[in-house]
Amino acid sequence: MPNSNTTHEVLTAVFQVRHFPDHITAGQGGDARHAGELAVLLWQRALDPQAGAWSLPGGLLREDEDLTTSARRQLAEKVDVQEVSHLEQLSVFSDPHRVPGPRTIASTFLGLVPLPADPQLPPDTAWHPVSALPEMAFDHGTVVRHARTRLAAKLSYTNIAFGLAPGEFSMSTLREIYCAALGYQVDATNLQRVLGRRGVLTPTGNTAPSGRAGGRPAALYRFTDSTLRVTDEFAALRPPS
Amino acid sequence: MPNSNTTHEVLTAVFQVRHFPDHITAGQGGDARHAGELAVLLWQRALDPQAGAWSLPGGLLREDEDLTTSARRQLAEKVDVQEVSHLEQLSVFSDPHRVPGPRTIASTFLGLVPLPADPQLPPDTAWHPVSALPEMAFDHGTVVRHARTRLAAKLSYTNIAFGLAPGEFSMSTLREIYCAALGYQVDATNLQRVLGRRGVLTPTGNTAPSGRAGGRPAALYRFTDSTLRVTDEFAALRPPS
Repeated sequence: MPNSNTTHEVLTAVFQVRHFPDHITAGQGGDARHAGELAVLLWQRALDPQAGAWSLPGGLLREDEDLTTSARRQLAEKVDVQEVSHLEQLSVFSDPHRVPGPRTIASTFLGLVPLPADPQLPPDTAWHPVSALPEMAFDHGTVVRHARTRLAAKLSYTNIAFGLAPGEFSMSTLREIYCAALGYQVDATNLQRVLGRRGVLTPTGNTAPSGRAGGRPAALYRFTDSTLRVTDEFAALRPPS
Repeated sequence: MPNSNTTHEVLTAVFQVRHFPDHITAGQGGDARHAGELAVLLWQRALDPQAGAWSLPGGLLREDEDLTTSARRQLAEKVDVQEVSHLEQLSVFSDPHRVPGPRTIASTFLGLVPLPADPQLPPDTAWHPVSALPEMAFDHGTVVRHARTRLAAKLSYTNIAFGLAPGEFSMSTLREIYCAALGYQVDATNLQRVLGRRGVLTPTGNTAPSGRAGGRPAALYRFTDSTLRVTDEFAALRPPS
Protein backbone atom coordinates (compact mmCIF):
# COMPACT_ATOMS: atom_id res chain seq x y z
CA MET A 1 0.00 0.00 0.00
CA PRO A 2 1.47 3.36 -0.95
CA ASN A 3 0.88 5.02 2.41
CA SER A 4 0.57 2.30 5.02
CA ASN A 5 3.40 3.83 7.10
CA THR A 6 1.44 7.04 7.49
CA THR A 7 -0.30 7.94 10.74
CA HIS A 8 -3.10 10.42 11.12
CA GLU A 9 -3.38 12.97 13.92
CA VAL A 10 -5.96 15.57 14.85
CA LEU A 11 -5.00 19.03 16.17
CA THR A 12 -7.40 21.72 17.41
CA ALA A 13 -6.76 25.44 17.75
CA VAL A 14 -9.12 26.41 20.60
CA PHE A 15 -9.68 30.17 20.81
CA GLN A 16 -11.24 32.33 23.48
CA VAL A 17 -11.21 36.10 24.07
CA ARG A 18 -9.44 36.56 27.39
CA HIS A 19 -7.97 39.34 29.50
CA PHE A 20 -4.25 39.07 30.20
CA PRO A 21 -3.35 41.16 33.25
CA ASP A 22 0.11 42.07 31.96
CA HIS A 23 -1.15 43.39 28.62
CA ILE A 24 -2.46 46.91 29.16
CA THR A 25 -4.11 48.61 26.20
CA ALA A 26 -5.43 52.15 25.87
CA GLY A 27 -9.22 51.77 25.85
CA GLN A 28 -12.02 54.00 24.67
CA GLY A 29 -12.17 57.34 26.40
CA GLY A 30 -8.43 57.36 26.90
CA ASP A 31 -8.31 55.32 30.12
CA ALA A 32 -5.86 52.46 30.21
CA ARG A 33 -7.71 49.15 30.61
CA HIS A 34 -7.27 45.45 30.07
CA ALA A 35 -8.63 44.87 26.56
CA GLY A 36 -9.67 41.36 25.61
CA GLU A 37 -7.25 39.46 23.41
CA LEU A 38 -7.67 36.38 21.27
CA ALA A 39 -6.05 33.50 23.16
CA VAL A 40 -5.21 29.95 22.12
CA LEU A 41 -5.05 26.86 24.34
CA LEU A 42 -1.58 25.23 24.34
CA TRP A 43 0.23 22.55 26.33
CA GLN A 44 3.97 22.41 26.96
CA ARG A 45 5.86 19.32 25.84
CA ALA A 46 7.70 17.61 28.70
CA LEU A 47 9.56 15.14 26.47
CA ASP A 48 11.48 15.21 23.23
CA PRO A 49 11.04 15.79 20.38
CA GLN A 50 10.97 19.50 21.10
CA ALA A 51 10.69 19.31 24.91
CA GLY A 52 9.67 22.71 26.27
CA ALA A 53 7.94 23.86 23.07
CA TRP A 54 4.16 24.42 23.08
CA SER A 55 1.67 22.23 21.19
CA LEU A 56 -1.96 22.29 20.17
CA PRO A 57 -4.26 19.80 21.94
CA GLY A 58 -4.65 16.65 19.86
CA GLY A 59 -3.28 13.22 19.20
CA LEU A 60 -3.54 10.20 16.98
CA LEU A 61 -6.82 9.23 15.38
CA ARG A 62 -8.11 5.89 16.70
CA GLU A 63 -9.28 3.18 14.34
CA ASP A 64 -12.88 3.32 15.58
CA GLU A 65 -13.52 7.07 15.54
CA ASP A 66 -14.03 9.76 12.93
CA LEU A 67 -12.15 13.05 13.03
CA THR A 68 -14.72 15.09 14.94
CA THR A 69 -15.13 12.38 17.58
CA SER A 70 -11.35 12.27 17.91
CA ALA A 71 -11.02 16.03 18.26
CA ARG A 72 -13.69 16.11 21.00
CA ARG A 73 -12.13 13.15 22.84
CA GLN A 74 -8.70 14.77 22.82
CA LEU A 75 -10.04 18.16 23.89
CA ALA A 76 -11.80 16.47 26.81
CA GLU A 77 -8.36 15.68 28.23
CA LYS A 78 -7.61 19.43 28.40
CA VAL A 79 -10.92 21.21 28.96
CA ASP A 80 -14.55 20.42 29.68
CA VAL A 81 -15.85 19.96 26.15
CA GLN A 82 -19.26 21.29 27.19
CA GLU A 83 -17.52 24.64 27.03
CA VAL A 84 -16.56 24.30 23.34
CA SER A 85 -19.41 26.12 21.59
CA HIS A 86 -18.21 25.59 18.01
CA LEU A 87 -15.88 23.11 16.30
CA GLU A 88 -15.14 23.05 12.57
CA GLN A 89 -12.64 21.38 10.30
CA LEU A 90 -9.77 23.41 8.89
CA SER A 91 -7.16 22.28 6.36
CA VAL A 92 -5.17 19.10 6.41
CA PHE A 93 -1.44 19.63 6.91
CA SER A 94 0.23 16.96 4.81
CA ASP A 95 3.84 17.92 4.11
CA PRO A 96 5.67 14.55 4.18
CA HIS A 97 8.32 16.01 6.51
CA ARG A 98 6.17 18.15 8.80
CA VAL A 99 7.20 16.15 11.90
CA PRO A 100 10.24 13.93 12.56
CA GLY A 101 9.79 10.14 12.43
CA PRO A 102 6.99 8.30 10.63
CA ARG A 103 4.93 10.42 8.29
CA THR A 104 2.02 12.00 10.15
CA ILE A 105 -0.85 13.79 8.43
CA ALA A 106 -2.62 16.37 10.61
CA SER A 107 -6.30 17.17 10.23
CA THR A 108 -6.86 20.46 11.99
CA PHE A 109 -9.90 22.00 13.68
CA LEU A 110 -10.96 25.40 14.92
CA GLY A 111 -12.67 25.35 18.34
CA LEU A 112 -14.30 28.31 20.10
CA VAL A 113 -14.96 28.84 23.83
CA PRO A 114 -17.41 31.60 24.80
CA LEU A 115 -17.00 34.32 27.40
CA PRO A 116 -17.03 34.11 30.38
CA ALA A 117 -16.16 30.38 30.65
CA ASP A 118 -12.92 29.76 32.53
CA PRO A 119 -12.19 26.05 32.11
CA GLN A 120 -10.04 24.22 34.66
CA LEU A 121 -6.75 23.40 32.94
CA PRO A 122 -4.21 20.63 33.57
CA PRO A 123 -0.82 21.83 34.91
CA ASP A 124 0.92 21.58 31.51
CA THR A 125 -1.74 23.68 29.74
CA ALA A 126 -2.29 27.44 29.46
CA TRP A 127 -3.92 30.16 27.36
CA HIS A 128 -1.52 32.30 25.32
CA PRO A 129 -2.27 35.49 23.38
CA VAL A 130 -2.26 34.67 19.66
CA SER A 131 -0.33 37.91 19.12
CA ALA A 132 2.55 36.67 21.32
CA LEU A 133 2.90 32.93 20.87
CA PRO A 134 5.62 31.11 22.82
CA GLU A 135 8.08 28.78 21.07
CA MET A 136 5.79 26.44 19.14
CA ALA A 137 6.40 22.77 18.30
CA PHE A 138 6.62 21.57 14.68
CA ASP A 139 4.17 23.45 12.42
CA HIS A 140 1.69 24.24 15.22
CA GLY A 141 2.35 27.98 14.96
CA THR A 142 1.33 27.83 11.30
CA VAL A 143 -1.87 26.00 12.28
CA VAL A 144 -2.72 28.73 14.82
CA ARG A 145 -2.21 31.49 12.23
CA HIS A 146 -4.27 29.56 9.69
CA ALA A 147 -7.08 29.13 12.24
CA ARG A 148 -7.00 32.81 13.15
CA THR A 149 -7.19 33.82 9.47
CA ARG A 150 -10.19 31.54 8.96
CA LEU A 151 -11.91 32.96 12.05
CA ALA A 152 -11.33 36.55 10.90
CA ALA A 153 -12.67 35.80 7.40
CA LYS A 154 -15.76 34.09 8.79
CA LEU A 155 -16.50 37.03 11.10
CA SER A 156 -17.26 39.04 7.97
CA TYR A 157 -19.71 36.68 6.25
CA THR A 158 -21.10 34.37 8.97
CA ASN A 159 -22.47 34.56 12.52
CA ILE A 160 -19.40 32.70 13.91
CA ALA A 161 -18.97 35.22 16.75
CA PHE A 162 -21.76 33.35 18.57
CA GLY A 163 -19.02 30.88 19.51
CA LEU A 164 -17.02 33.54 21.38
CA ALA A 165 -19.83 35.63 22.91
CA PRO A 166 -21.71 35.13 26.18
CA GLY A 167 -25.37 34.14 25.99
CA GLU A 168 -26.37 37.79 26.46
CA PHE A 169 -24.15 40.80 25.81
CA SER A 170 -23.99 44.54 25.22
CA MET A 171 -22.74 45.94 21.90
CA SER A 172 -19.70 47.15 23.77
CA THR A 173 -18.81 43.58 24.78
CA LEU A 174 -19.50 42.30 21.26
CA ARG A 175 -17.27 45.02 19.81
CA GLU A 176 -14.47 43.97 22.16
CA ILE A 177 -14.83 40.37 20.95
CA TYR A 178 -14.66 41.42 17.29
CA CYS A 179 -11.66 43.69 17.92
CA ALA A 180 -9.82 40.89 19.73
CA ALA A 181 -10.60 38.24 17.14
CA LEU A 182 -9.76 40.49 14.17
CA GLY A 183 -6.73 42.17 15.77
CA TYR A 184 -7.83 45.70 14.87
CA GLN A 185 -10.40 48.24 16.01
CA VAL A 186 -13.96 48.15 14.68
CA ASP A 187 -16.70 50.70 15.24
CA ALA A 188 -19.60 49.57 17.49
CA THR A 189 -22.18 51.62 15.55
CA ASN A 190 -21.21 50.09 12.20
CA LEU A 191 -21.07 46.63 13.72
CA GLN A 192 -24.57 46.98 15.16
CA ARG A 193 -25.94 48.37 11.88
CA VAL A 194 -24.50 45.56 9.74
CA LEU A 195 -25.33 42.70 12.10
CA GLY A 196 -28.80 44.14 12.69
CA ARG A 197 -29.52 44.39 8.95
CA ARG A 198 -28.53 40.75 8.53
CA GLY A 199 -30.71 39.53 11.39
CA VAL A 200 -27.69 38.13 13.25
CA LEU A 201 -28.61 39.71 16.61
CA THR A 202 -31.86 39.67 18.59
CA PRO A 203 -32.50 42.13 21.46
CA THR A 204 -33.27 40.24 24.66
CA GLY A 205 -35.24 43.12 26.19
CA ASN A 206 -32.81 43.26 29.12
CA THR A 207 -30.32 46.00 29.94
CA ALA A 208 -26.94 46.02 31.64
CA PRO A 209 -26.28 48.33 34.59
CA SER A 210 -24.48 51.46 33.41
CA GLY A 211 -20.70 51.51 33.86
CA ARG A 212 -18.44 53.75 35.94
CA ALA A 213 -18.98 56.65 33.58
CA GLY A 214 -22.76 56.55 34.13
CA GLY A 215 -25.05 57.14 31.14
CA ARG A 216 -27.92 55.06 29.82
CA PRO A 217 -28.10 51.36 30.69
CA ALA A 218 -26.90 49.34 27.68
CA ALA A 219 -29.39 47.18 25.73
CA LEU A 220 -28.51 43.50 25.71
CA TYR A 221 -28.55 41.16 22.71
CA ARG A 222 -28.14 37.49 21.90
CA PHE A 223 -27.17 35.72 18.67
CA THR A 224 -30.31 34.72 16.78
CA ASP A 225 -28.73 31.37 15.86
CA SER A 226 -26.25 29.27 17.76
CA THR A 227 -25.08 27.23 14.79
CA LEU A 228 -22.99 28.55 11.93
CA ARG A 229 -24.74 30.15 8.97
CA VAL A 230 -23.66 32.36 6.09
CA THR A 231 -25.28 35.72 6.80
CA ASP A 232 -24.45 37.39 3.53
CA GLU A 233 -26.52 35.68 0.91
CA PHE A 234 -26.87 38.84 -1.11
CA ALA A 235 -30.21 39.56 -2.70
CA ALA A 236 -29.29 38.57 -6.25
CA LEU A 237 -28.29 35.09 -5.15
CA ARG A 238 -31.11 34.31 -2.76
CA PRO A 239 -33.12 31.26 -3.76
CA PRO A 240 -36.75 31.92 -4.72
CA SER A 241 -38.89 31.87 -1.56
CA MET B 1 0.39 2.75 16.49
CA PRO B 2 -3.34 3.40 16.79
CA ASN B 3 -3.96 3.94 13.10
CA SER B 4 -1.17 2.27 11.15
CA ASN B 5 -3.66 0.18 9.17
CA THR B 6 -5.29 3.31 7.82
CA THR B 7 -4.71 4.48 4.25
CA HIS B 8 -5.29 7.95 2.95
CA GLU B 9 -6.91 8.81 -0.37
CA VAL B 10 -7.62 12.04 -2.21
CA LEU B 11 -10.86 12.63 -4.14
CA THR B 12 -11.70 15.68 -6.26
CA ALA B 13 -15.14 16.90 -7.35
CA VAL B 14 -14.34 18.70 -10.63
CA PHE B 15 -17.17 20.97 -11.77
CA GLN B 16 -17.84 22.72 -15.06
CA VAL B 17 -20.94 24.43 -16.47
CA ARG B 18 -21.85 22.39 -19.55
CA HIS B 19 -24.69 22.03 -22.03
CA PHE B 20 -26.35 18.62 -22.14
CA PRO B 21 -28.19 18.19 -25.44
CA ASP B 22 -30.95 16.04 -23.94
CA HIS B 23 -31.81 18.53 -21.19
CA ILE B 24 -34.01 21.22 -22.69
CA THR B 25 -34.92 24.15 -20.45
CA ALA B 26 -37.24 27.08 -21.15
CA GLY B 27 -34.90 30.04 -21.53
CA GLN B 28 -35.37 33.78 -21.30
CA GLY B 29 -37.87 35.17 -23.76
CA GLY B 30 -39.85 31.94 -23.73
CA ASP B 31 -37.83 30.06 -26.34
CA ALA B 32 -36.74 26.56 -25.43
CA ARG B 33 -32.94 26.37 -25.32
CA HIS B 34 -30.13 24.30 -23.88
CA ALA B 35 -29.36 25.97 -20.54
CA GLY B 36 -25.98 25.35 -18.97
CA GLU B 37 -25.94 22.90 -16.08
CA LEU B 38 -23.41 22.22 -13.38
CA ALA B 39 -21.60 19.02 -14.32
CA VAL B 40 -19.19 16.81 -12.40
CA LEU B 41 -16.39 14.64 -13.81
CA LEU B 42 -16.84 10.93 -12.99
CA TRP B 43 -15.30 7.62 -14.06
CA GLN B 44 -17.07 4.28 -14.14
CA ARG B 45 -15.62 1.43 -12.10
CA ALA B 46 -14.78 -1.61 -14.22
CA LEU B 47 -13.97 -3.88 -11.27
CA ASP B 48 -15.46 -4.71 -7.92
CA PRO B 49 -16.09 -3.39 -5.37
CA GLN B 50 -19.08 -1.69 -6.91
CA ALA B 51 -18.28 -2.42 -10.58
CA GLY B 52 -20.43 -0.19 -12.80
CA ALA B 53 -20.88 2.55 -10.20
CA TRP B 54 -19.36 5.98 -10.82
CA SER B 55 -16.44 7.45 -8.84
CA LEU B 56 -14.70 10.75 -8.34
CA PRO B 57 -11.18 11.04 -9.76
CA GLY B 58 -8.58 10.32 -7.12
CA GLY B 59 -6.51 7.63 -5.52
CA LEU B 60 -4.11 6.86 -2.71
CA LEU B 61 -1.77 9.50 -1.38
CA ARG B 62 1.87 8.66 -2.05
CA GLU B 63 4.47 8.84 0.69
CA ASP B 64 6.41 11.64 -1.00
CA GLU B 65 3.59 14.04 -1.89
CA ASP B 66 1.26 16.39 -0.06
CA LEU B 67 -2.49 16.41 -0.67
CA THR B 68 -2.58 19.14 -3.32
CA THR B 69 0.24 17.53 -5.30
CA SER B 70 -1.60 14.24 -5.09
CA ALA B 71 -4.91 15.73 -6.26
CA ARG B 72 -3.21 17.37 -9.26
CA ARG B 73 -1.32 14.19 -10.17
CA GLN B 74 -4.49 12.12 -10.06
CA LEU B 75 -6.49 14.65 -12.05
CA ALA B 76 -3.78 14.62 -14.70
CA GLU B 77 -4.74 11.02 -15.44
CA LYS B 78 -8.26 12.21 -16.35
CA VAL B 79 -7.94 15.75 -17.76
CA ASP B 80 -5.26 18.22 -18.75
CA VAL B 81 -4.63 19.89 -15.41
CA GLN B 82 -3.85 23.18 -17.16
CA GLU B 83 -7.61 23.36 -17.54
CA VAL B 84 -8.29 23.26 -13.77
CA SER B 85 -8.55 26.96 -12.88
CA HIS B 86 -9.18 26.52 -9.15
CA LEU B 87 -8.55 23.75 -6.62
CA GLU B 88 -9.36 23.95 -2.91
CA GLN B 89 -9.57 21.54 0.00
CA LEU B 90 -12.96 20.47 1.27
CA SER B 91 -13.71 18.29 4.30
CA VAL B 92 -12.08 15.04 5.24
CA PHE B 93 -14.43 12.04 5.13
CA SER B 94 -13.33 9.80 7.98
CA ASP B 95 -16.14 7.41 8.90
CA PRO B 96 -14.26 4.20 9.83
CA HIS B 97 -16.58 2.15 7.58
CA ARG B 98 -16.94 4.50 4.60
CA VAL B 99 -15.42 1.93 2.21
CA PRO B 100 -15.07 -1.85 2.48
CA GLY B 101 -11.68 -3.32 3.41
CA PRO B 102 -8.87 -1.46 5.20
CA ARG B 103 -9.88 1.84 6.70
CA THR B 104 -9.41 4.66 4.17
CA ILE B 105 -9.64 8.33 5.07
CA ALA B 106 -10.58 10.59 2.15
CA SER B 107 -9.37 14.17 1.85
CA THR B 108 -11.62 15.85 -0.68
CA PHE B 109 -11.09 18.77 -3.04
CA LEU B 110 -13.24 21.06 -5.17
CA GLY B 111 -11.87 21.69 -8.68
CA LEU B 112 -13.27 24.10 -11.27
CA VAL B 113 -12.89 24.04 -15.07
CA PRO B 114 -13.79 27.24 -16.96
CA LEU B 115 -15.97 27.63 -20.03
CA PRO B 116 -15.41 26.87 -22.87
CA ALA B 117 -12.70 24.25 -22.17
CA ASP B 118 -13.64 20.78 -23.41
CA PRO B 119 -10.97 18.45 -22.08
CA GLN B 120 -10.23 15.14 -23.82
CA LEU B 121 -11.49 12.38 -21.55
CA PRO B 122 -10.42 8.73 -21.19
CA PRO B 123 -13.05 6.18 -22.31
CA ASP B 124 -14.20 5.37 -18.75
CA THR B 125 -14.78 9.04 -17.86
CA ALA B 126 -17.68 11.42 -18.53
CA TRP B 127 -19.38 14.62 -17.33
CA HIS B 128 -22.70 14.13 -15.52
CA PRO B 129 -25.24 16.78 -14.49
CA VAL B 130 -25.02 17.22 -10.72
CA SER B 131 -28.83 17.32 -10.68
CA ALA B 132 -29.03 13.79 -12.13
CA LEU B 133 -26.12 11.75 -10.80
CA PRO B 134 -25.79 8.12 -11.89
CA GLU B 135 -25.35 5.33 -9.36
CA MET B 136 -22.40 6.53 -7.28
CA ALA B 137 -19.75 4.41 -5.56
CA PHE B 138 -19.32 4.47 -1.76
CA ASP B 139 -19.89 7.97 -0.32
CA HIS B 140 -18.89 9.78 -3.52
CA GLY B 141 -22.43 11.13 -4.05
CA THR B 142 -22.22 12.77 -0.62
CA VAL B 143 -18.88 14.32 -1.55
CA VAL B 144 -20.40 15.79 -4.75
CA ARG B 145 -23.32 17.33 -2.81
CA HIS B 146 -20.93 18.70 -0.19
CA ALA B 147 -18.76 20.25 -2.93
CA ARG B 148 -21.78 21.79 -4.63
CA THR B 149 -23.01 23.29 -1.34
CA ARG B 150 -19.57 24.80 -0.73
CA LEU B 151 -19.45 26.23 -4.25
CA ALA B 152 -22.93 27.77 -3.88
CA ALA B 153 -22.04 29.34 -0.51
CA LYS B 154 -18.79 30.77 -1.87
CA LEU B 155 -20.57 32.31 -4.87
CA SER B 156 -22.25 34.66 -2.40
CA TYR B 157 -19.20 35.94 -0.54
CA THR B 158 -16.19 35.35 -2.81
CA ASN B 159 -15.17 35.77 -6.46
CA ILE B 160 -15.06 31.98 -6.98
CA ALA B 161 -17.05 32.18 -10.23
CA PHE B 162 -13.76 33.18 -11.93
CA GLY B 163 -13.02 29.46 -11.92
CA LEU B 164 -16.06 28.65 -14.06
CA ALA B 165 -16.15 31.68 -16.39
CA PRO B 166 -14.33 32.26 -19.68
CA GLY B 167 -11.59 34.88 -19.76
CA GLU B 168 -14.06 37.42 -21.19
CA PHE B 169 -17.84 37.19 -20.94
CA SER B 170 -21.15 39.03 -21.21
CA MET B 171 -23.40 39.43 -18.16
CA SER B 172 -25.79 37.03 -19.83
CA THR B 173 -23.12 34.30 -19.87
CA LEU B 174 -22.14 35.06 -16.27
CA ARG B 175 -25.78 34.88 -15.21
CA GLU B 176 -26.08 31.47 -16.86
CA ILE B 177 -23.02 30.28 -14.91
CA TYR B 178 -24.46 31.50 -11.59
CA CYS B 179 -27.87 29.94 -12.34
CA ALA B 180 -26.26 26.60 -13.20
CA ALA B 181 -23.95 26.56 -10.19
CA LEU B 182 -26.66 27.64 -7.73
CA GLY B 183 -29.45 25.57 -9.24
CA TYR B 184 -31.97 28.42 -9.33
CA GLN B 185 -32.60 31.57 -11.36
CA VAL B 186 -30.81 34.82 -10.55
CA ASP B 187 -31.44 38.25 -12.01
CA ALA B 188 -28.68 39.61 -14.32
CA THR B 189 -29.27 43.23 -13.27
CA ASN B 190 -28.92 42.44 -9.54
CA LEU B 191 -25.91 40.27 -10.22
CA GLN B 192 -24.16 43.04 -12.15
CA ARG B 193 -25.01 45.63 -9.48
CA VAL B 194 -23.70 43.53 -6.57
CA LEU B 195 -20.55 42.27 -8.31
CA GLY B 196 -19.86 45.75 -9.67
CA ARG B 197 -20.15 47.37 -6.23
CA ARG B 198 -17.68 44.83 -4.85
CA GLY B 199 -15.14 45.39 -7.61
CA VAL B 200 -15.32 41.75 -8.68
CA LEU B 201 -15.75 42.52 -12.41
CA THR B 202 -13.74 44.75 -14.74
CA PRO B 203 -15.11 45.86 -18.16
CA THR B 204 -12.70 44.84 -20.93
CA GLY B 205 -13.90 47.54 -23.31
CA ASN B 206 -14.95 44.90 -25.86
CA THR B 207 -18.44 43.96 -26.94
CA ALA B 208 -20.02 40.74 -28.14
CA PRO B 209 -21.93 40.64 -31.43
CA SER B 210 -25.66 40.93 -30.75
CA GLY B 211 -27.62 37.67 -30.69
CA ARG B 212 -30.42 36.40 -32.90
CA ALA B 213 -32.87 38.83 -31.36
CA GLY B 214 -30.74 41.83 -32.41
CA GLY B 215 -30.40 44.73 -29.95
CA ARG B 216 -27.32 46.43 -28.58
CA PRO B 217 -24.01 44.55 -28.60
CA ALA B 218 -23.32 43.25 -25.07
CA ALA B 219 -20.47 44.72 -23.03
CA LEU B 220 -17.84 42.19 -22.05
CA TYR B 221 -16.22 41.77 -18.63
CA ARG B 222 -13.46 39.82 -16.95
CA PHE B 223 -12.90 38.88 -13.31
CA THR B 224 -10.63 41.45 -11.66
CA ASP B 225 -8.77 38.69 -9.79
CA SER B 226 -8.07 35.13 -10.81
CA THR B 227 -7.35 33.84 -7.33
CA LEU B 228 -9.92 33.40 -4.60
CA ARG B 229 -10.72 36.33 -2.34
CA VAL B 230 -13.52 37.19 0.08
CA THR B 231 -15.40 40.04 -1.60
CA ASP B 232 -17.65 40.90 1.29
CA GLU B 233 -15.45 42.37 3.98
CA PHE B 234 -18.16 44.68 5.16
CA ALA B 235 -17.21 48.20 6.12
CA ALA B 236 -17.37 47.72 9.89
CA LEU B 237 -14.81 44.93 9.76
CA ARG B 238 -12.37 46.37 7.25
CA PRO B 239 -8.89 46.81 8.70
CA PRO B 240 -7.67 50.40 9.00
CA SER B 241 -6.09 51.45 5.69
